[in-house]
Amino acid sequence: MPRHTALAIADAVGGTLTGNGAVVLSRVAHPADTLGAGDLVLAIDPKLVPFLDGKQVTAMIVSRGVDVPDGMAQAVIAVDRGRLAMSALTRLFAETVPVAPGIHPTAVVEDGAKIGQNVTIGAQSFVGAGAVIGDNCVLHPQTYVAPRATLGADGLVYPGARIGMNVVIGARSIIHFNASVGADGFSFVTPEAGSVEQAKASGGGTVTAESNNQLLRIASLGAVIVGDDVEIGANTSIDRGTIVATRIGNGTKIDNQVQIGHNVTIGDNCLICGRVGIAGSAKIGNRVVLGGAVGVADHVSIGDDAVAMALSGIAGNVQAQSVVGGIPAMPRDRLMEQFMSIGRLKQFFKKIEDLTGRIDKLEGPVKKD
Amino acid sequence: MPRHTALAIADAVGGTLTGNGAVVLSRVAHPADTLGAGDLVLAIDPKLVPFLDGKQVTAMIVSRGVDVPDGMAQAVIAVDRGRLAMSALTRLFAETVPVAPGIHPTAVVEDGAKIGQNVTIGAQSFVGAGAVIGDNCVLHPQTYVAPRATLGADGLVYPGARIGMNVVIGARSIIHFNASVGADGFSFVTPEAGSVEQAKASGGGTVTAESNNQLLRIASLGAVIVGDDVEIGANTSIDRGTIVATRIGNGTKIDNQVQIGHNVTIGDNCLICGRVGIAGSAKIGNRVVLGGAVGVADHVSIGDDAVAMALSGIAGNVQAQSVVGGIPAMPRDRLMEQFMSIGRLKQFFKKIEDLTGRIDKLEGPVKKD
Amino acid sequence: MPRHTALAIADAVGGTLTGNGAVVLSRVAHPADTLGAGDLVLAIDPKLVPFLDGKQVTAMIVSRGVDVPDGMAQAVIAVDRGRLAMSALTRLFAETVPVAPGIHPTAVVEDGAKIGQNVTIGAQSFVGAGAVIGDNCVLHPQTYVAPRATLGADGLVYPGARIGMNVVIGARSIIHFNASVGADGFSFVTPEAGSVEQAKASGGGTVTAESNNQLLRIASLGAVIVGDDVEIGANTSIDRGTIVATRIGNGTKIDNQVQIGHNVTIGDNCLICGRVGIAGSAKIGNRVVLGGAVGVADHVSIGDDAVAMALSGIAGNVQAQSVVGGIPAMPRDRLMEQFMSIGRLKQFFKKIEDLTGRIDKLEGPVKKD
Repeated sequence: MPRHTALAIADAVGGTLTGNGAVVLSRVAHPADTLGAGDLVLAIDPKLVPFLDGKQVTAMIVSRGVDVPDGMAQAVIAVDRGRLAMSALTRLFAETVPVAPGIHPTAVVEDGAKIGQNVTIGAQSFVGAGAVIGDNCVLHPQTYVAPRATLGADGLVYPGARIGMNVVIGARSIIHFNASVGADGFSFVTPEAGSVEQAKASGGGTVTAESNNQLLRIASLGAVIVGDDVEIGANTSIDRGTIVATRIGNGTKIDNQVQIGHNVTIGDNCLICGRVGIAGSAKIGNRVVLGGAVGVADHVSIGDDAVAMALSGIAGNVQAQSVVGGIPAMPRDRLMEQFMSIGRLKQFFKKIEDLTGRIDKLEGPVKKD
Repeated sequence: MPRHTALAIADAVGGTLTGNGAVVLSRVAHPADTLGAGDLVLAIDPKLVPFLDGKQVTAMIVSRGVDVPDGMAQAVIAVDRGRLAMSALTRLFAETVPVAPGIHPTAVVEDGAKIGQNVTIGAQSFVGAGAVIGDNCVLHPQTYVAPRATLGADGLVYPGARIGMNVVIGARSIIHFNASVGADGFSFVTPEAGSVEQAKASGGGTVTAESNNQLLRIASLGAVIVGDDVEIGANTSIDRGTIVATRIGNGTKIDNQVQIGHNVTIGDNCLICGRVGIAGSAKIGNRVVLGGAVGVADHVSIGDDAVAMALSGIAGNVQAQSVVGGIPAMPRDRLMEQFMSIGRLKQFFKKIEDLTGRIDKLEGPVKKD
Repeated sequence: MPRHTALAIADAVGGTLTGNGAVVLSRVAHPADTLGAGDLVLAIDPKLVPFLDGKQVTAMIVSRGVDVPDGMAQAVIAVDRGRLAMSALTRLFAETVPVAPGIHPTAVVEDGAKIGQNVTIGAQSFVGAGAVIGDNCVLHPQTYVAPRATLGADGLVYPGARIGMNVVIGARSIIHFNASVGADGFSFVTPEAGSVEQAKASGGGTVTAESNNQLLRIASLGAVIVGDDVEIGANTSIDRGTIVATRIGNGTKIDNQVQIGHNVTIGDNCLICGRVGIAGSAKIGNRVVLGGAVGVADHVSIGDDAVAMALSGIAGNVQAQSVVGGIPAMPRDRLMEQFMSIGRLKQFFKKIEDLTGRIDKLEGPVKKD
């Protein structure tokens, strides 16, 4: 890991330094780790401080206001918003995965590819004819950039990532292991009304006749257009559009194992968590958060700043700034009410039995008359 | 994109041409795109026609019966079934991802592989000994075909796709980025009754003793056998069978991020949408549609022409031609009724309170007696 | 397939041999297969024996106590615990995927990588500087081992698997097609309170102001540390930790399409089925079984020997040895009760209507008074 003084770190994380700012730190450590000289111990969560009882460490980073016993650390950095400090701190100590500079002799760069300044193309990577690789991009080994794909400046592409033809990716992108950007959309049509169409026509209950004997492919003519500062997780798939492009806005972060269908548009600064699936032509606004494994139906719209709880299934439009959950997704308050109602069912069934008994009794003498 | 006359396009899509059939079209465009000469504007959805108000375009394709103002387009093609027309239209304009013909010098083709006529094997691809590659197959860069795997004629394999040993894939297959066909099944056994067996024996409620201290692997001797005209999506996994093969029928289309377990059989012309998971030994009939993220339990059977709604969890057998949804999946009508019932709970709880009050009142004078 | 005598097989599977132990068997077959000489027919499930009526086969393996008609098989092996026998049997007949021994000339092994004895590195594979490959490891073609990653002895790595920097994997691991071990965690922070924080602060109902205009990355300094005898499925992703490592215990088996987030710890001998997702910092005990597509929320703890039913969503801690299901997950007994309650709703609504009618009647005369 890189090395920094406590003072430099305090500056970078916007923290307040106490003690010796000149100590040099070479590792960020957890209080439960075996600690040694040069460790900056991360104890932003106050519950972690007791782990250090009786120990002497080089430096600590804690939440402002937390008491650190005298002599425990040569330097203490106190911060206000811990996770924010973590961003600056981890950036300081992050190590770049080394890759030999320049174009590796085993890489294949087809004639007509445009390679920017200071680009690294790792071993066994492929860049097709007409592809454009922006300045300072680092393509690790075993990446694939199709003919006529464009990767903006300062991009970072990890092994096994696949960037399809005509795909355009903005600046400062990070594309992780085995991500697929620009495979064909999943779009088929039957000559006669297919089974899903029949079921809809019949009110949803049944398929009325054998169909789907022929599934005709609708090819994907559109590309995928990805903005700047986008991160695409490992083993994630983003399909190209049918006519217009599938679009991912600036600053949006996409986790692993995500499936984004053809024609989908996602706005800026969204957080798309692991295992999410977004069906064809859905429209996701700006700053939307989709929790883990959320499913979004085709053609649905989700408003700006909406949050979908993990595992929810979004079958209809979602309002801006709302929080939804459940399958099908509904406002969170209603979902919680439903969970509570279902939890109370047994007691209500009991109540109904009681009432029945009381009514039986009330009716009893009437019948005797 | 390829170029075609309006007349040729009208013929291909089975549409009716009005205007100048000789105009040459070089792009399919959306009405909201910046339009130019040579654009065929796709306005099959009548709501899109107003986007063109006051514009003059080269050609349009619309649904039959929709009015197109005079002078808006030099040629108009009217079609009956829009999505069907889309299939023919996109096929006309689809571009093949270019790949240098023949076997790239960086490809590794082991001795004893049988390569058909007119086969392309892209850079950094691997074909193992005893593998058979059918005529006209195109293997893009960085694909892997294991020893003794067979790929039928006219196959199209995209970068990162992996085809395992003894796997047999039919003609005209399309295998997308990073798909896995023929990894080992997930099958283990414990020497004594394992935790799941114990839970079942105890009625499902608890695991009665520590177990699973040893997980013994059951190896996969079976292959994966895939029919003709099958499409396998990006980052999808299809595992080999234990003794007999995992089988995918002709014409079945599988989307991205799908998981198909060992011994599964899937019939012909099924549509398996993104993120679906099918556990070991499940049997899926013909023309079945599994919506996004559907889960199918092991050993379950699904009848022909059945449709499973997105996010449903199929725990038991499903009848032919039925439409099911929910977790656990049930007929759609029943699911809708349940959703409605749950939505009405609050009001029924209120009713019970009212009835209780009324009974209290009725009882009141009785008690006074 | 390998060849073995009936006697050797009976010994290996711990079964009892009847008949001619010297017959040589070269294939494990299903009763419904076309059978020939040298087939060992697997009929552990007694329902499969009738498939063989009137046939004469070389050998059969059956459950102890099942009657095999005289003359049906030259040798019969009877076993007690069928699945356990399957483990030994399939191990005997499993074929290794062939790969040319040694380091393939197209493989790239950077200076400073430490390669053990008897290691195979397939075509187009990459091993970075400082990586350590244990004795007897087999890296198939097109694998990636990052600089400074460590792979223990006897490891088996299939094409497209990616092992990230500083990742440590124990002995006898099996890593399938396109698995990702050691991509960065998905961890971001907003300078001000983000939308999810706002929603929590407001009681969960809404996002109170536009936020998430800046998503700052928290880099992953931690590694992934994987124990011995671990299997990692195709297209599965395991992210590195933020400060400490993501950890997978000894003997744990992970299926395909699984997502394991940063800082997660998983104990020994767990079974993690296909499509499972485990969010950041969750702690999974030993011998835990997570069924297909289970979701585990961040920071949740799951006790030893717990079983989560397929498709469940674990939002809170789970007790050791418990069986849970549903979204959110609850003890299985309670879930079953809830399903039953919901199924009875319609009939209870009817009851309430009846009671209302009866009360109306009871009140009737009162009002007339």
